[in-house]
Amino acid sequence: MKKHNFSAGPSILPKDVIQKSAEGILNINGSNLSLIEISHRSKDFVEIMNSATSLALELLNLENKGYKALFLQGGASMQFLMTAYNLLENKAGYINTGAWSTKALKEAKNFGNAIEIASSKDANFNYIPKNYSIDEDLDYLHITTNNTIFGTQYHEIPETKNNLICDMSSDIFSRNIDFSKFALIYAGAQKNMGPAGTTLVIVKEDILGKVSRNIPSMLDYKIHIDKESMFNTPPVFAVYTSMLTLEWLKENGGIKSIETKNIEKANLLYNTIDSNELFTGFAEKEDRSLMNVTFNLTNQEHKQHFDKLCIDANISGVNGHRSVGGYRASIYNALDLNSVKVLINVMNELKTII
Amino acid sequence: MKKHNFSAGPSILPKDVIQKSAEGILNINGSNLSLIEISHRSKDFVEIMNSATSLALELLNLENKGYKALFLQGGASMQFLMTAYNLLENKAGYINTGAWSTKALKEAKNFGNAIEIASSKDANFNYIPKNYSIDEDLDYLHITTNNTIFGTQYHEIPETKNNLICDMSSDIFSRNIDFSKFALIYAGAQKNMGPAGTTLVIVKEDILGKVSRNIPSMLDYKIHIDKESMFNTPPVFAVYTSMLTLEWLKENGGIKSIETKNIEKANLLYNTIDSNELFTGFAEKEDRSLMNVTFNLTNQEHKQHFDKLCIDANISGVNGHRSVGGYRASIYNALDLNSVKVLINVMNELKTII
Repeated sequence: MKKHNFSAGPSILPKDVIQKSAEGILNINGSNLSLIEISHRSKDFVEIMNSATSLALELLNLENKGYKALFLQGGASMQFLMTAYNLLENKAGYINTGAWSTKALKEAKNFGNAIEIASSKDANFNYIPKNYSIDEDLDYLHITTNNTIFGTQYHEIPETKNNLICDMSSDIFSRNIDFSKFALIYAGAQKNMGPAGTTLVIVKEDILGKVSRNIPSMLDYKIHIDKESMFNTPPVFAVYTSMLTLEWLKENGGIKSIETKNIEKANLLYNTIDSNELFTGFAEKEDRSLMNVTFNLTNQEHKQHFDKLCIDANISGVNGHRSVGGYRASIYNALDLNSVKVLINVMNELKTII
Repeated sequence: MKKHNFSAGPSILPKDVIQKSAEGILNINGSNLSLIEISHRSKDFVEIMNSATSLALELLNLENKGYKALFLQGGASMQFLMTAYNLLENKAGYINTGAWSTKALKEAKNFGNAIEIASSKDANFNYIPKNYSIDEDLDYLHITTNNTIFGTQYHEIPETKNNLICDMSSDIFSRNIDFSKFALIYAGAQKNMGPAGTTLVIVKEDILGKVSRNIPSMLDYKIHIDKESMFNTPPVFAVYTSMLTLEWLKENGGIKSIETKNIEKANLLYNTIDSNELFTGFAEKEDRSLMNVTFNLTNQEHKQHFDKLCIDANISGVNGHRSVGGYRASIYNALDLNSVKVLINVMNELKTII
């Protein structure tokens, strides 16, 4: 029986992608060799890498605008330090909207003057800060567009003259914004793009080469650009499966089309939370995430009932993060509307049995 | 028809491992979820990670000796900088046996006084240096046990009182040596252990914490030890498939048993090179690698014939690296003796058609 997979990440991928990915493991492009047994310099894999980077730029509408797409390793956590290593010379500003922003700021402090411009820590990060002033002399301003743990999301990107750097790990490719506002975007693959093991970095080339420190090769964006993400052996499987997911997204109408579906899924779920008195939302309404829906029971005595209903309906991955509690339904691109409806049915069913 | 895959890396993996790996992509442990769609904090994956690290220590006979096993990202190239970041305070020594040693030394220089103790560059790295003196006050001595490109391998590990650090990317798990001679061993997975995308690091815990610099979290071995390779989302698929390969190795008698097979394969091939006047070996005989057999035609006019014979026999991946030329047969653990015999037949067949 089909599982309804609301896992926060690694998370659901399109069924077709999973199928093709397994087929590639057995036999890539009819070569009688496994994808994971061939040289990364082979024609088969070079085409996969080129296709993945091209699709990423195309889907984000960033072609021919001075950006390069890289598939690196180490997750967003490696980008926390790489962004600072490559770009922090005098002062960088961070907007703190949760656990991951906090870590990004902490790592940057290894490399220089990294300051917190605004924070929503005072309310356990249940909102996105607004009405703060941004220094004009920053090397960059860093934001986290979607906060997986807390279920908040920027619905307006801050206006700034500084280079804008963004951790977009949990909402890249899910909604249509003007991506050219950003000087650098990074995203761990394991939400909307592919399996864990690779990180997409989209970087405007002209922001690089301006710091005075030596940068080790593996941490230097310029080297990865020069080597087209092949400075050393790339994470072949993760790049391949990311390419398949980006192909799936393109075939299904791209970001505009998926955004419509994501809004529909989120609206249905938030409407249930707001209309069903057994539940309450965690994030401030105006900052609610289209990707991670955080909510709780109004009465914890119903927990056992609700958890059992979820299990019986084959719903998995809805436990909230320990720092928020309650529940979190992650409704990424690949999650069907039907799975959201199953969850909503269970939420409504709870009323009939208590 | 079966390919005989002599690729240098990413390279051949056991057929059963490929099959199980593809099955895990479709459905892990009968959960009706894909391996790549589940949380890395799930019971299923935590057991995979624990099993992979335990197997690595067990197979290397390093259990209960103060070592920890880590599965990280970024390949050996990331270890070039991480080893220096974590361990280089005053002076480190490097023995230069090829392209990868050269890069390791170059990256270490970003962090302090890294010196070349000996080198075989004078003969395009076709031998392993001997009879050099090693400073006694090094933070560590770094060697590369097997040189994939040049086909050389240490058959005696240098004696030193310094901490010995080793890039074992292309010969780990292939032969039985006293691994407790090393303070730190690292190896990209994509030769004898698994697919590209993870790096095994075996580190003696008591060598850490002795440098004065700040280390960013993702580059700090201590943090990865504390978090049991789960400081952030690990490369789930690469770790899983590495675990499968280590299980396969254990089921097949472990390192001692595979070493016997590897010696048999290498001897057969080197004997052919030495006895067939159409071929000549590249590496000095006493330093020949059991993993990467580098050779060339004595007469380049035979190249077209030999290449066609290889293609007709379904042999793939035998082109030499550009810096050596000629041919390279990588005969890793998973390569059948039969594939070596097919190559030898082709080498002998060449005599009959020219």
